[in-house]
Amino acid sequence: MATAYAVILAGGRGERFWPLSTHQRPKQFLTLFGGKPLLQQAVERLEGVIPPERTLVITSADLVPLTCEVLPALPVENVVGEPCGRDTAAACALACALVERRDPDGVVCILTADQIMRDAPAFRRTLADAIAVAAAHEVIVTIGIAPTAPATGFGYIRTGARFETNADTAFMRVERFVEKPDLDTAQRYLADGRYLWNAGMFIWRTQVMRRALATFAPVLDALCDRIVGASPGAAEAVLGEAYPDLKKISVDYAVMEHADNLVVARGAFGWDDVGSWTSVADHLPADADGNTVVGTCQALDAAGNIVVAEEGRVVALLGVSDLIVATRGNVILVCHKDRAQDVKKLAHQIGDARGGTSPRGS
Amino acid sequence: MATAYAVILAGGRGERFWPLSTHQRPKQFLTLFGGKPLLQQAVERLEGVIPPERTLVITSADLVPLTCEVLPALPVENVVGEPCGRDTAAACALACALVERRDPDGVVCILTADQIMRDAPAFRRTLADAIAVAAAHEVIVTIGIAPTAPATGFGYIRTGARFETNADTAFMRVERFVEKPDLDTAQRYLADGRYLWNAGMFIWRTQVMRRALATFAPVLDALCDRIVGASPGAAEAVLGEAYPDLKKISVDYAVMEHADNLVVARGAFGWDDVGSWTSVADHLPADADGNTVVGTCQALDAAGNIVVAEEGRVVALLGVSDLIVATRGNVILVCHKDRAQDVKKLAHQIGDARGGTSPRGS
Repeated sequence: MATAYAVILAGGRGERFWPLSTHQRPKQFLTLFGGKPLLQQAVERLEGVIPPERTLVITSADLVPLTCEVLPALPVENVVGEPCGRDTAAACALACALVERRDPDGVVCILTADQIMRDAPAFRRTLADAIAVAAAHEVIVTIGIAPTAPATGFGYIRTGARFETNADTAFMRVERFVEKPDLDTAQRYLADGRYLWNAGMFIWRTQVMRRALATFAPVLDALCDRIVGASPGAAEAVLGEAYPDLKKISVDYAVMEHADNLVVARGAFGWDDVGSWTSVADHLPADADGNTVVGTCQALDAAGNIVVAEEGRVVALLGVSDLIVATRGNVILVCHKDRAQDVKKLAHQIGDARGGTSPRGS
Repeated sequence: MATAYAVILAGGRGERFWPLSTHQRPKQFLTLFGGKPLLQQAVERLEGVIPPERTLVITSADLVPLTCEVLPALPVENVVGEPCGRDTAAACALACALVERRDPDGVVCILTADQIMRDAPAFRRTLADAIAVAAAHEVIVTIGIAPTAPATGFGYIRTGARFETNADTAFMRVERFVEKPDLDTAQRYLADGRYLWNAGMFIWRTQVMRRALATFAPVLDALCDRIVGASPGAAEAVLGEAYPDLKKISVDYAVMEHADNLVVARGAFGWDDVGSWTSVADHLPADADGNTVVGTCQALDAAGNIVVAEEGRVVALLGVSDLIVATRGNVILVCHKDRAQDVKKLAHQIGDARGGTSPRGS
C-alpha cells in the first residue's frame, strides 16, 4: 500500500485572537486551547498514522523559525516557507510536489494547523480510512464534518451517493461545494442531513492530484514539474521565482469545485476552527456566573465575560457582562462579544497608530 | 490682624480611584486632574494667601514620607502624622493645638487635600475674606459651596440670616447642617437657594475653636492642652499615647452641629470632590464619541467610556460603551460607569485574593 505523508498548511495570519495572536505569531501558535500551540497539537494528533519524518508543514517564510521551534520533533527540512501567501491552491500544489520528490506514489494528506479536534482517536480512524480510500481509488478524498449547529461561518459540502468501500467511515460522492450560507439556509442544511462542513482537509495520491491540476490549474501543474525536477537545494529558488506571479486562489475554487472524482469522508471528532475570541467560551469551562477565565480575574457582579490575562496580570471586573478582556504585552483589549469578528480590524487600526501618527491621548 | 495658617487634612484612604489610588497611595496623590498630585495643588493654590511655611499637613503616619516628597516646598516639620485615623474632630483639634503652639492668636484654616477648585483666584478671595471674618469676629467660619447640581453625595448647610461684614464674599449664619439627601430632597435644596454644600473647610481663631471644644468635646480640648504644653519633640509621644483612645467622629458631629457661632461663606470657584472614576469625564475633555482618555487608547464603535492607561500601555476598545477601563501596574480594571462607587469593594476583594488564597484561574 502507498505511504502517507501529512502536509499541514500553516500559513494563516489569523489576527482574530489579537492581541494574543498577531501577524508575527498567528493563531496556529496559540496555546489557549490545550496548553500547546495548535500547530503542535496538529502534528501530535497524527501519532500512529503518520510519523513526524513524513509530516511536512508549509508556512510563510518568515514564520519558519517559530514553526521549527514549536515542532522540535520535525526534521527542519520538513518545514517549508512560502515566499508569499498565494492561498491554498498554490500551497496544495507545493505539497503535491514536495511529496512527489520524495515518493511519486505517496498519499498526500492536506491538513490544517489551527483547528481543534476533541476526539483525536476518532480523527485518526477517519484519516486512516481516508488514506486507504485515496490509495486504492482514483479519487480525491476530503474529510467533511458532520454539522452540530447551523454555522454560517463555514462552507458546506453537499454529499451524493454512497461511495462503496470497506472502511468503517462513511464515504460519499461530493455532489457540490456550497458557499457560507445565511442562517436560514444553514438551518436547512443542518436539518437536511446531506450537508457537511468543509474543513479544508484533502487526501490524494500525488498522481491523482497532478492530473486534476493539469486539467483545472495547468500553471500549478507546471510549477509542480519545476519543483519536482529541481536539483536538491534549488527548489527554494524555484518558489522565489514562481510564487509572486501565482494567482491567489483557494484549492476549492481552483480544483475541487471542478473535479468529478471527489469523495467525502463523514468526520465526527469534535472539530472546531476556533475562529474568534468567543470560541474560548465554547472550549474552556466557565464559572458559576458564566465567566470564562484564563489567568487571574476577580469579578464582582460580572457575568458571561471571557477573560484571558497574561501571567502576572490581574483583571478586575465590576458590573460588566458579555465582554472579552484580553491582555498581552502592553495591549489590553476590551471588546463586546458581539464584535469578536472585528478584532482584526481594530488590530490593524492599532498597528497603523503605533507605526505612524501617534494615537490620541495625553 | 491675626496671622493665618493652613492645615490641610490629608489622611484620606480613598480607594475609589483604584487601581490608580490605593491604601498606600490614596486619592490626594492622584495626578489625573491637573497633572500634579491633588495635595500639591491644594498647597499651591494658597499662594499669596498663606505661604508654605505656615501651611501644615495632617496625614497618617505611614503617608508622611510620600507627603513630604510631593510637597518639597513645605518644611518637613509641617507634615504631621497621626498614629491612627480618628476622623476629622481629632484632626481639627490637633490642627488647633499645632497652630496654637506656634501662635496663640493664629487663624486656622482647615482645608482639604483631594478636591478640585477650577477657579483658584476666586477660592483665594473667598478664603482671604473668611480669614478676615474669623479674625475679627467670635465665629467659626465654614466655606459652603453654591450647589450646581442636585448632588446626593454631599452634606448640605442651610443658611440663615446674612452675617454683616465688609467682605466681598457673602457670609450667612449657619442655620443647620443636613445629612446627604435623597435626590428629591437634593432637588428641593437646589431650587430653594438657601442650601450650600458642606465642603469640610473651616476657618477659626485657635481660641474660638478651643472654647467650642471645651464645651462640646472636652476630651479633645484636653488633648489640645497636652499637645500645646508638650516640650519640643514630645508632641509625637502625646499623640501616640492619646490617639488610640479617641472616638472616631467627624468635626461636624462633634462640634459644628452644636455650635451657635457658625458663619458660612458662599463659595463659587468650580469646586468638586472628584469622588469616583466618573468624575474623570466631568473634568477632562472627551472625544467626539464621548470617550474620555488619559494615555493611549484606540477605539472602534466605542462611546462614553473613560480610559486611563498607564504610560506605555494601549487600551483597545471595540463595541463597548459606558465603561471605565483603568490600568496601573499589573491591575486592569474594567467597570461599568454605574458601578464606579463600588470600586473600593472590588479593590478589597482583590487585596484579599492577593494576600490570601490564590484567585481563580489557571
